[in-house]
Amino acid sequence: MIYLSKTLDFAAAHRLHNPALSDDENIRLFGKCNNPRGHGHNYVLEVTVCGEPDATTGAVCDVYSLERAIHEHCVDKLDHKFLNEDVPEMEGVISSTENLCDVIWRMLTGHIPAPAKLHRIRLWETERSCFEYSGS
Amino acid sequence: MIYLSKTLDFAAAHRLHNPALSDDENIRLFGKCNNPRGHGHNYVLEVTVCGEPDATTGAVCDVYSLERAIHEHCVDKLDHKFLNEDVPEMEGVISSTENLCDVIWRMLTGHIPAPAKLHRIRLWETERSCFEYSGS
Amino acid sequence: MIYLSKTLDFAAAHRLHNPALSDDENIRLFGKCNNPRGHGHNYVLEVTVCGEPDATTGAVCDVYSLERAIHEHCVDKLDHKFLNEDVPEMEGVISSTENLCDVIWRMLTGHIPAPAKLHRIRLWETERSCFEYSGS
Amino acid sequence: MIYLSKTLDFAAAHRLHNPALSDDENIRLFGKCNNPRGHGHNYVLEVTVCGEPDATTGAVCDVYSLERAIHEHCVDKLDHKFLNEDVPEMEGVISSTENLCDVIWRMLTGHIPAPAKLHRIRLWETERSCFEYSGS
Amino acid sequence: MIYLSKTLDFAAAHRLHNPALSDDENIRLFGKCNNPRGHGHNYVLEVTVCGEPDATTGAVCDVYSLERAIHEHCVDKLDHKFLNEDVPEMEGVISSTENLCDVIWRMLTGHIPAPAKLHRIRLWETERSCFEYSGS
Amino acid sequence: MIYLSKTLDFAAAHRLHNPALSDDENIRLFGKCNNPRGHGHNYVLEVTVCGEPDATTGAVCDVYSLERAIHEHCVDKLDHKFLNEDVPEMEGVISSTENLCDVIWRMLTGHIPAPAKLHRIRLWETERSCFEYSGS
Repeated sequence: MIYLSKTLDFAAAHRLHNPALSDDENIRLFGKCNNPRGHGHNYVLEVTVCGEPDATTGAVCDVYSLERAIHEHCVDKLDHKFLNEDVPEMEGVISSTENLCDVIWRMLTGHIPAPAKLHRIRLWETERSCFEYSGS
Repeated sequence: MIYLSKTLDFAAAHRLHNPALSDDENIRLFGKCNNPRGHGHNYVLEVTVCGEPDATTGAVCDVYSLERAIHEHCVDKLDHKFLNEDVPEMEGVISSTENLCDVIWRMLTGHIPAPAKLHRIRLWETERSCFEYSGS
Repeated sequence: MIYLSKTLDFAAAHRLHNPALSDDENIRLFGKCNNPRGHGHNYVLEVTVCGEPDATTGAVCDVYSLERAIHEHCVDKLDHKFLNEDVPEMEGVISSTENLCDVIWRMLTGHIPAPAKLHRIRLWETERSCFEYSGS
Repeated sequence: MIYLSKTLDFAAAHRLHNPALSDDENIRLFGKCNNPRGHGHNYVLEVTVCGEPDATTGAVCDVYSLERAIHEHCVDKLDHKFLNEDVPEMEGVISSTENLCDVIWRMLTGHIPAPAKLHRIRLWETERSCFEYSGS
Repeated sequence: MIYLSKTLDFAAAHRLHNPALSDDENIRLFGKCNNPRGHGHNYVLEVTVCGEPDATTGAVCDVYSLERAIHEHCVDKLDHKFLNEDVPEMEGVISSTENLCDVIWRMLTGHIPAPAKLHRIRLWETERSCFEYSGS
Repeated sequence: MIYLSKTLDFAAAHRLHNPALSDDENIRLFGKCNNPRGHGHNYVLEVTVCGEPDATTGAVCDVYSLERAIHEHCVDKLDHKFLNEDVPEMEGVISSTENLCDVIWRMLTGHIPAPAKLHRIRLWETERSCFEYSGS
């Protein structure tokens, strides 16, 4: 079993805010991340798939198809967007990077070129803050 | 003469938009960077100062004072902000990284711990896009 | 389950030396790492905690509390220190990076903001030498 | 149990090509990677071994012996080579990075300084494409 | 004056070889870099242009046009190629990274989107070997 | 004219301390960097030389000779040392990174393989603190 990881990035804005709470409570919970007009990041996304190398190609899956799938089903929907309002999949979801991991997992699962399988995603909000999710 | 560079970062949102132009013209000029609610970056800022090492300390300037000055006069004003609306120094300025270099230069000059002098700033919008400015 | 990793660093000196052995034996075992006055590193520490995102905040734990805990209970005790003599937790311990992993694990466990749990630490002695420990 | 990882690199050329297929089929499957005279990479190899720290040295294994073993049994055989023709261990193997992982695993297993054990290899073909293998 | 740098990469194979010299002399001069079937690198190219920010856009030049120009006139001609034989501009040129700098400079000059001007290129053969050229 | 830069690193300990001052004054000036038993860094050194590519080899100088010279005359004297006491060239010099630049410049000048000339050194004390010196 080989694990193949592709890394891509996207630039997006977001605001940590829970509309069910008061403004004061939001500021207390989220601090500067609650800034009304938002702030932003260069998110770095690592997608890991796994499988056996194919006897004919030596590859776990066609890597260009994998890149296209990640772009089409995930990165192109998030890049240069305000995550809180421009992304239908994030409606009603607090735009924490934890929740974004779950959204990205659901965007990608079902779109990985067979026979590879989605194994794990890692999402860096900054170079020094990384979130990892494996779908359960 | 020694050149000393400190690197810091800040997370901010911005939108490329020229209010003197029509919406169509803005989209034609700025493309996805014109997204109405903005997008964001982890900006990386390198500040270079220069001077002769002091005979008593061996240092060009006190590096902790330099870091505090960069935080107080620049990074704390930009971090977790929407550059187009939350930063007084950017009022009336298109929030391109080129223009942000000029704003940062003016924020810092006059606040570098003597006898060091501000020499150059570099500002990375992404890991692969860097802007450099030396005040003239 | 989400795994959240924060990366911090500290600059420290150390010397590989086993006082139970002769000087010759120490040199044979540790080579240049046995230099009597020591040498040093910019250690990079990645702390990984895990948990379910909270429904109210979308977060596994408060990330600023997590950073403060790592600083208070670990990094501030190791930064700008000579590990062999300045750190009580390392008394009687050979200051290998393997043993330092164990010391750091014990410094941190019990201080991770609930409900997150300490999952793993990684410690880079240099960019190309990494040690990983999960507490057992 | 501590996991110790050493990172090394080598520069090599290769060509994705399956001699059992027609030229057209090779181009269809491998695209620009099928260029007849090949292309190349700075491969980055991370070798992870595991074990208990030794009571006398505090180390999982002698790290200089580990580096020498990786050089002698693996990196020196691959560095500045054309993988398809200059490496006996790759004869009859499509030079995909997936297959190269398997070749490297077999090169290293049996040569790790006791009592450490080979745990995992990671191989980056580019900064953004990583392959991982654990021997089964 | 602002200096704008874009970084791109390409994977290529090459062989250091001077056909005017004997095989022995080539081996003596170039060592393992003379391997007959070549070796390869992930070359990283930084292109720096300079100019005044435009009053309407705040930009030194249209960055997407700049990226397209670098791809069309340079990177697409070098990527996944054997530099010694697949690149007409390198005919009769020893494929040292020094000479490749000169070739890339001539590929790019005349194709930078006005009013920006080509200022400098940097070319990394490996992460630790960088070559810089400014056209004279 | 081509500028060629090689990057190497070394691990060393040091202590900022001016023996002409009182202990209190040293603590006031240098803070935690004055810790009596020192602290340490993974210093990263970039050495830049310049010259015209040779017509026969296409190279500014023999890069392996350059690496050997940097090792022999500089890195091997600093690696795994306590800079304040183990390095004769630093006797009577405060071990600031500014002063270390000057020491390294004098170690290297006169030992660069002809016809290349030493142009500049850069020395990173940490990933985010860089010092640059060009010999005057």
